[in-house]
Amino acid sequence: MFREKIKVFDCTIRDGGLINNHDFESRFAREVYKALSAAGVDYMEIGYKNSKKLFSPKEYGKWKFCDDEEIKRVIDGVKSAMKLSIMVDVDRVDIEDVKPKKDSPVDMIRVACYVKDIDKAIFLANHFADKGYETTINIMAISHAPDNELTEALHQLEEETKAGVIYIVDSFGALYQESVEFLVKKFKGILKSKEIGMHAHNNQQLAFGNTIEAIIHDANYVDGTVYGLGRAAGNCPLELLIGFLKNPKFDIRPILDLISKEFIPLREKIEWGYIIPYAITGILDVHPKAAMTLRGSAKKEDYREFYESLAGADLD
Amino acid sequence: MFREKIKVFDCTIRDGGLINNHDFESRFAREVYKALSAAGVDYMEIGYKNSKKLFSPKEYGKWKFCDDEEIKRVIDGVKSAMKLSIMVDVDRVDIEDVKPKKDSPVDMIRVACYVKDIDKAIFLANHFADKGYETTINIMAISHAPDNELTEALHQLEEETKAGVIYIVDSFGALYQESVEFLVKKFKGILKSKEIGMHAHNNQQLAFGNTIEAIIHDANYVDGTVYGLGRAAGNCPLELLIGFLKNPKFDIRPILDLISKEFIPLREKIEWGYIIPYAITGILDVHPKAAMTLRGSAKKEDYREFYESLAGADLD
Repeated sequence: MFREKIKVFDCTIRDGGLINNHDFESRFAREVYKALSAAGVDYMEIGYKNSKKLFSPKEYGKWKFCDDEEIKRVIDGVKSAMKLSIMVDVDRVDIEDVKPKKDSPVDMIRVACYVKDIDKAIFLANHFADKGYETTINIMAISHAPDNELTEALHQLEEETKAGVIYIVDSFGALYQESVEFLVKKFKGILKSKEIGMHAHNNQQLAFGNTIEAIIHDANYVDGTVYGLGRAAGNCPLELLIGFLKNPKFDIRPILDLISKEFIPLREKIEWGYIIPYAITGILDVHPKAAMTLRGSAKKEDYREFYESLAGADLD
Repeated sequence: MFREKIKVFDCTIRDGGLINNHDFESRFAREVYKALSAAGVDYMEIGYKNSKKLFSPKEYGKWKFCDDEEIKRVIDGVKSAMKLSIMVDVDRVDIEDVKPKKDSPVDMIRVACYVKDIDKAIFLANHFADKGYETTINIMAISHAPDNELTEALHQLEEETKAGVIYIVDSFGALYQESVEFLVKKFKGILKSKEIGMHAHNNQQLAFGNTIEAIIHDANYVDGTVYGLGRAAGNCPLELLIGFLKNPKFDIRPILDLISKEFIPLREKIEWGYIIPYAITGILDVHPKAAMTLRGSAKKEDYREFYESLAGADLD
């Protein structure tokens, strides 16, 4: 029997945008929106809301800013019950850019932060909640969070934030099931009034398995992306999540169509997925940026040298 | 602290041979043998022992037959503590082809069977054990095994076979963690005098996660293949397994080298891995053969039509 509370959250355009400077065409984003709506997905995150004072629209694509008019161009005329989300990073958003919910096509705002920035995240989430949005706080780089600081942050979240969902974000694709179980149980133990979310990265081909693990221990918000699109190794493949979940409202077929028509050609142009340097950064529990640099160099397949450069990097 | 009893079992050449008619060059097999030996892998399975009365050496490569002289060509002169294994299928092996262990470079013989053929498998395993080999029995297509038949087979195995290890084989890549947990606990509950093994397929990117799950519940023999090479979606990537295990005897670096030099070029020639039609057969819990046929056709990317053809196949 399926668990009705489970919400499937797609972040294809948002996380995928980290590969191409958030520069997906409106046509592509609209195809994704249509397919996800037909598949019964609960939420779609379309990009970041960054301040144009900090980042230039000349250097970045439109999904780095998510102007309401751009969003409307994607969704207008499509029959859909799906909710829309945008993400904000602490210290990068200008809160004046965010209109009250009643004037915006956006339903949810997710605030991403490191555990050290939890106070800033609480301020932002509460501010957006007061403007009428559903909100979440997503704790990034969870594998690097000191346990005592995390404990304190979770207590603060339970008491101080209006965000309804707190996410575990395995930014480096470093978690194994046992740590996912530990973290979800820890979150559930403190966050009595919140739902728990899981955002996994696929460096070690564990994004889907870890998301199932989180579901087993009662996380109800689960992130995926179509064909696993996302920075570096990418994310939990949405098609696998839809194939796994038993709620009859989900339909995998529109997503299969979308992959055939849009994602197979896209994969010829941009790279993501199971690639050994990303597996190495996952195994070593570090940010993928060194691997991304390697993949743009002539040494892109020199795995042993790359491993040795990272494995010994903090010894000297 | 690591669990010393865990044995890492490589089946790159054996399972990979299912893609190319078992026709890997001796040079390639020798490079694999050298790297695995240097990495501290416990066992390497080099191929099948099939009867030449049933299969013609003109149609199949040498690793379908595994003559001792061919094996010696691969291993001679290489310093190695690794044990060698071959696999036999029920009804396909001529037991007269298998010399006593003292006259062979092979250490272990694994007998693959469906649950209905358990009596034949027990006969073969006991025969090879009497000839001096370590033996295992590998129960294929476990996701299709009726629970009552499996229970009976496990009791028989506990009482009647000299095989030291009984494997769970997720042939279709259909298992999720909860079923892996159920099966390993079931096996452990009945097979008091045996070790449990896990052989996973990667259709849903769960081969590594399911192998970790099996380890958590006390399976000690775990199969992998270099870069996940294997029929259709392939297997648990050995490099991830080595990266996960804590036993200091393992060294990932020779495997990274091997992937750079041999497997990246090989992947240009033959196809395996995360490919949507294999994900679909995994989700639907069926043999990948229909997907393999599709991948050889002009409709190779028509995922929706393929899904619909399989999902409704047993309704009429």
